[in-house]
Amino acid sequence: MPDDRVAPPESLTPTRRVEVTRVTGQIVTRTTDVAAAEEPLDVRLHGRSFAVIMRTPGEDKALAAGFLLSERIIRSFDEVGAIEHCRHPDQTKAHHVVDVYLVGGAASRVPAMLEQRRQVIANSSCGICGRSTIDELLGELEPIGVDPAKPAVPLTVIRALPDRLRARQSAFDETGGLHAAAICAAAGEILAVAEDVGRHNAVDKVVGRLLMAPPAPLTATVLMVSGRVSFEIVQKAWIAGIPVVAAISAPTSLAVDLARAAGVTLVGFLRPGGLNIYAGADRLATV
Amino acid sequence: MPDDRVAPPESLTPTRRVEVTRVTGQIVTRTTDVAAAEEPLDVRLHGRSFAVIMRTPGEDKALAAGFLLSERIIRSFDEVGAIEHCRHPDQTKAHHVVDVYLVGGAASRVPAMLEQRRQVIANSSCGICGRSTIDELLGELEPIGVDPAKPAVPLTVIRALPDRLRARQSAFDETGGLHAAAICAAAGEILAVAEDVGRHNAVDKVVGRLLMAPPAPLTATVLMVSGRVSFEIVQKAWIAGIPVVAAISAPTSLAVDLARAAGVTLVGFLRPGGLNIYAGADRLATV
Repeated sequence: MPDDRVAPPESLTPTRRVEVTRVTGQIVTRTTDVAAAEEPLDVRLHGRSFAVIMRTPGEDKALAAGFLLSERIIRSFDEVGAIEHCRHPDQTKAHHVVDVYLVGGAASRVPAMLEQRRQVIANSSCGICGRSTIDELLGELEPIGVDPAKPAVPLTVIRALPDRLRARQSAFDETGGLHAAAICAAAGEILAVAEDVGRHNAVDKVVGRLLMAPPAPLTATVLMVSGRVSFEIVQKAWIAGIPVVAAISAPTSLAVDLARAAGVTLVGFLRPGGLNIYAGADRLATV
Repeated sequence: MPDDRVAPPESLTPTRRVEVTRVTGQIVTRTTDVAAAEEPLDVRLHGRSFAVIMRTPGEDKALAAGFLLSERIIRSFDEVGAIEHCRHPDQTKAHHVVDVYLVGGAASRVPAMLEQRRQVIANSSCGICGRSTIDELLGELEPIGVDPAKPAVPLTVIRALPDRLRARQSAFDETGGLHAAAICAAAGEILAVAEDVGRHNAVDKVVGRLLMAPPAPLTATVLMVSGRVSFEIVQKAWIAGIPVVAAISAPTSLAVDLARAAGVTLVGFLRPGGLNIYAGADRLATV
């Protein structure tokens, strides 16, 4: 048996120690530093590779579940029969494989999904590939309606989120190299936080965690991200049914367009002095 | 003829005006803001779709060339016979397609490349897919050696780069939503700058621009990026033969590991007070 079955191998931790030569003014020192870990994760469907994701280790099953929701392979966690790290005896390999088995109608669609997946052109920076226009998405998904019976989210709640998120973002403080995402209840309570070298992965992790064990329906939550908002972040919120997205930094133009089409409230530049509302202002209460 | 053949359509510009509700303290105003543009670009090989990349419009041909180099479809620009925006009469569509035609031996490999590409599993956040380990890469690529005949890059040059880059980063200042990359000569002169919503795209754009019209061999340059350094940024530098990568922010652990294996000098946290050297310090001169 390899020794690494006794102590948890380093590949389980979200950071790594690295040797570094530090230059401060004219002074050069050798020291160690902490870097965000980045490793490939192979998400398998019924034993066959579905996607390899470069991610920060940790929350691997939540990442796989959120990713499969975003890719619309599953619609709810009820369709997942089993989700588990690979049981290969060499555990250093097992940490980089999550096996997923679907049940019922979803299980019978797996061969077609794998076939369709192979035909989708591989893509350098996003998961939307050819089916990428807003119109195409609108043909497949309903916009999220504003429910007049649901109380508006107070702006004071939105404005308090960055500080709440920063207080929970441990790896970010250590390395400066991670994105964070959180899902919060409409009253501001943080329900899930995740960090990753990939901003999309951080979102898939928090969505996946709530999908696996929902303390609150996603339709009554706010998705908060530490950085910028791309098209795909809004797309993930829409698919998950999350009506409000808030970000510390800027949205792209296509993220704004999609938020308006999808009925998603989009807040950007969430800073101590103020914020910008790009879409869905009627879901927010300024009192 | 559609009217947009007369005036250049908005899809050519790297930013878009968006309506926004701005909240500053207790004051709510309606105004317009500028957002980074994000649109899909279809890169076609011999008329067939090879990859769809979500990118900020501009430098599309350079992006396509750099991307094809990174994916090791081409080894030099000599293998590109033609690279052009699609000539479809509807120009609003044409802006989102770049057609590439290879020549010689590369041309005869195109059908096999497209076939292999379809078999690569589509991937949420990177272009490396299954062939993702450093060992696999080392089996295919030689590490970049340190040439003792080549003068070391003075640290003073590296330390001056962030200010030089910021002075050129126009869209970043406008939107706060873009990544920037630059390639500089060893003496510090900026040879190419590009901006994009995707950090990998910004690197592909500057590499592609130098590939298409090299004012200096890439083997004597420094790649500078505005944000963090992932595995894939180092991989792109290695494939392009760029020996030094410098970044304003943190590298990931795998980026450090790959830089050491690939013989790439890696500088991070390049700030006014100092910097960290994670790999290849012998290529830098501290005087």
